[in-house]
Amino acid sequence: MQKHIHEWIHLHREESTAFLQKLVRIPSTQGNEQRAQFLIADKLLELSLDVDLWEPDGEALALHPYFCSPRNTFIGSPNVVGVLKGVGGGRSLLLNGHMDVVPEGNRAQWQDDPFSGNVVDGKLYGRGATDMKGGNISLLMAIEAVQSLGIKLKGDIIFESVIEEESGGAGTLAAIVKGYKADAALIPEPTNMRIFPKQQGSMWFRMEVKGRSAHGGTRYEGVSAIEKSIAVIQHIRELEVDRNARISDPLYANNPIPIPINIGVIQGGNWPSSVADTVKLEGRMGVAPAETLDDAKEEMRQWMAKLSVKDPWFAAHPPTVEWFGAQWVPGNVDPDHAFMQVLMQQFRAVKQDEPVIEASPWGTDGGLLTQVGDTPCIVFGPGITQVAHYPNEHIVLEHVFEAAEIIALTIIQWCGLDNSEA
Amino acid sequence: MQKHIHEWIHLHREESTAFLQKLVRIPSTQGNEQRAQFLIADKLLELSLDVDLWEPDGEALALHPYFCSPRNTFIGSPNVVGVLKGVGGGRSLLLNGHMDVVPEGNRAQWQDDPFSGNVVDGKLYGRGATDMKGGNISLLMAIEAVQSLGIKLKGDIIFESVIEEESGGAGTLAAIVKGYKADAALIPEPTNMRIFPKQQGSMWFRMEVKGRSAHGGTRYEGVSAIEKSIAVIQHIRELEVDRNARISDPLYANNPIPIPINIGVIQGGNWPSSVADTVKLEGRMGVAPAETLDDAKEEMRQWMAKLSVKDPWFAAHPPTVEWFGAQWVPGNVDPDHAFMQVLMQQFRAVKQDEPVIEASPWGTDGGLLTQVGDTPCIVFGPGITQVAHYPNEHIVLEHVFEAAEIIALTIIQWCGLDNSEA
Repeated sequence: MQKHIHEWIHLHREESTAFLQKLVRIPSTQGNEQRAQFLIADKLLELSLDVDLWEPDGEALALHPYFCSPRNTFIGSPNVVGVLKGVGGGRSLLLNGHMDVVPEGNRAQWQDDPFSGNVVDGKLYGRGATDMKGGNISLLMAIEAVQSLGIKLKGDIIFESVIEEESGGAGTLAAIVKGYKADAALIPEPTNMRIFPKQQGSMWFRMEVKGRSAHGGTRYEGVSAIEKSIAVIQHIRELEVDRNARISDPLYANNPIPIPINIGVIQGGNWPSSVADTVKLEGRMGVAPAETLDDAKEEMRQWMAKLSVKDPWFAAHPPTVEWFGAQWVPGNVDPDHAFMQVLMQQFRAVKQDEPVIEASPWGTDGGLLTQVGDTPCIVFGPGITQVAHYPNEHIVLEHVFEAAEIIALTIIQWCGLDNSEA
Repeated sequence: MQKHIHEWIHLHREESTAFLQKLVRIPSTQGNEQRAQFLIADKLLELSLDVDLWEPDGEALALHPYFCSPRNTFIGSPNVVGVLKGVGGGRSLLLNGHMDVVPEGNRAQWQDDPFSGNVVDGKLYGRGATDMKGGNISLLMAIEAVQSLGIKLKGDIIFESVIEEESGGAGTLAAIVKGYKADAALIPEPTNMRIFPKQQGSMWFRMEVKGRSAHGGTRYEGVSAIEKSIAVIQHIRELEVDRNARISDPLYANNPIPIPINIGVIQGGNWPSSVADTVKLEGRMGVAPAETLDDAKEEMRQWMAKLSVKDPWFAAHPPTVEWFGAQWVPGNVDPDHAFMQVLMQQFRAVKQDEPVIEASPWGTDGGLLTQVGDTPCIVFGPGITQVAHYPNEHIVLEHVFEAAEIIALTIIQWCGLDNSEA
């Protein structure tokens, strides 16, 4: 069986590369996913899957407690799901990948057009190549290999091409709400072929630190919001130390700060010779796999309340804390879960090597699937973590094909081979 | 003589208040000074002064080493000078005030229209009332009182109504370049009736602190420019301590930080979940009366070079330092200067009290007059320091009249009374 799969994939390298090029050449940034999703829907129809293409109802979805998106309408931004029914009696598998890509950023930092899809030295370049159109191609190759080789499965395969992963997961949430679930799920996000049964969640926060304005020549008559924001940043740094000291999960053994709190934006004051009266801080709080978003928010709230013990200024002028923008629910599947065993086994079979098992330092839609969608999700894919969201993003095509092979074998092993006709 | 002056001023309170209202109702922000300056020129002609109204030649002025302005053309922004020639044999006096005002800022913070000129409880309200149209009215009343009473002076009076004080002094510089100078000068900036023989200078700087970007979930792979900017701010704070420890001038006895370094603006990073790779800091460096701008710049340069001793990151990535925007040359007149004696004497005569002598915590055009224009300048005026540049700026009219009286007597005493006809 492994030999057949390997050969099929080997023979369809060029065809799949061309399809990945086609996908990468569509700049499917937020709001512009439709063309790419139509292409996927066509492909699923060609593979004889039952295809469901729909634009999520933003107003209805916005009522869901896990809804998080900067927009409330998804007109022109369809989700696509394809279902391959098994003959019954097997375990179902959900294969999920997102079609939205982050913007290309500063074009001057790209050596080529950001959406070129060019192949150089076995690497395919362009925004989304790694995150995560390459992984999506691995999924489609795996399904097509199984179909083309006439393999009959017991369990169902549910393939999801979703929108909105990059801004909070509303696409995957919409598929959950529509009722799609399975006994296990795989998302081929760019993990450098590592296997992540757990994923760090995260949330964005915004704080406003207050001071009191004065002329810079008599700055002692004011209170600098810039100096107060330094105290706030140092206070948050202590919270980060405290939270990470509690992480003992061996999957984080190689990670110096398993759940970081990053202050990414600072902005305050508006005149060089005035004392700044306000500073805005924006950041990202990492959430541990075993934690809930609400627990993490509550810990931040309580920690910030302690600021006034250090400096009475904060008692009268507490910084405001607001949770805004994106959030990713953490994912938390037991490394001993049966689906982990199957995936690791197929990894060893194809790679002739032991897989690296870790907890991801970032969130994916896997958290939603596991915690909200009742579908334990593991993240494993061919892309390069380091180039995701960066200029000159690319993927090693060989890894796309290897991942396809591992996933095809995993599908067969997990869903079960139907031998009734054999 | 004092009695005549007092009576004349008392009788012209309403007329002068109306003129101040007229001036305040003209929003003479940078670039919009013309209407107010024409009004002043009319007044000077009415007082039979020789009037010189001209738009400074921006291109020529820009070549001057002390030129500092965000613009290089002054078309529509005239300076006005009026000269009252004495009969000879006396000391000349230059009376300088600026007609430009800072913008009104957020109108919602004003209880009334920012340019209302309304009088409530003896206070006249509006942007520029204190800084420094009220002081200018004191000067004009003093000159008019002397003229109206038929007092003949030995020395010349040079009255200057200048542009650009709020953005680096190009108006006063243009008058210096044109040749206007005297044996002493007075600027009635808002000092709360304190006398400032010395004035703090200042310069604006901009620094760019560098980091290295990374995803917030793996922030340890990057270098946060926000954290590095905290180190830079603390380093600058040490320089401030060091520089102020060297100030022993008794005029600064009541000032906790005679020459502050204020960081007024901080701005860095552009994404909550990314490690910030750049932070911009903008600030104002106070310059001691006895110091030159260049000395202070050089001290900052040398101090910033020491950052790399604290943190090797700065050796490879030194923050850039740029001097930009406005600068004010410090002023430094000996408190025992003859003009100080005259001014203090007349202050005592009118106020029946001892004047407060201090060094100002901010720069004025006095530094240019003293250091560049060869005209020792003292700052003393009726405005309220605390409301300058703030919403609901106002001035106590009684102080305008008191200052006018002190200045009229100072003019007579300094320039010398011509008794030849008497």
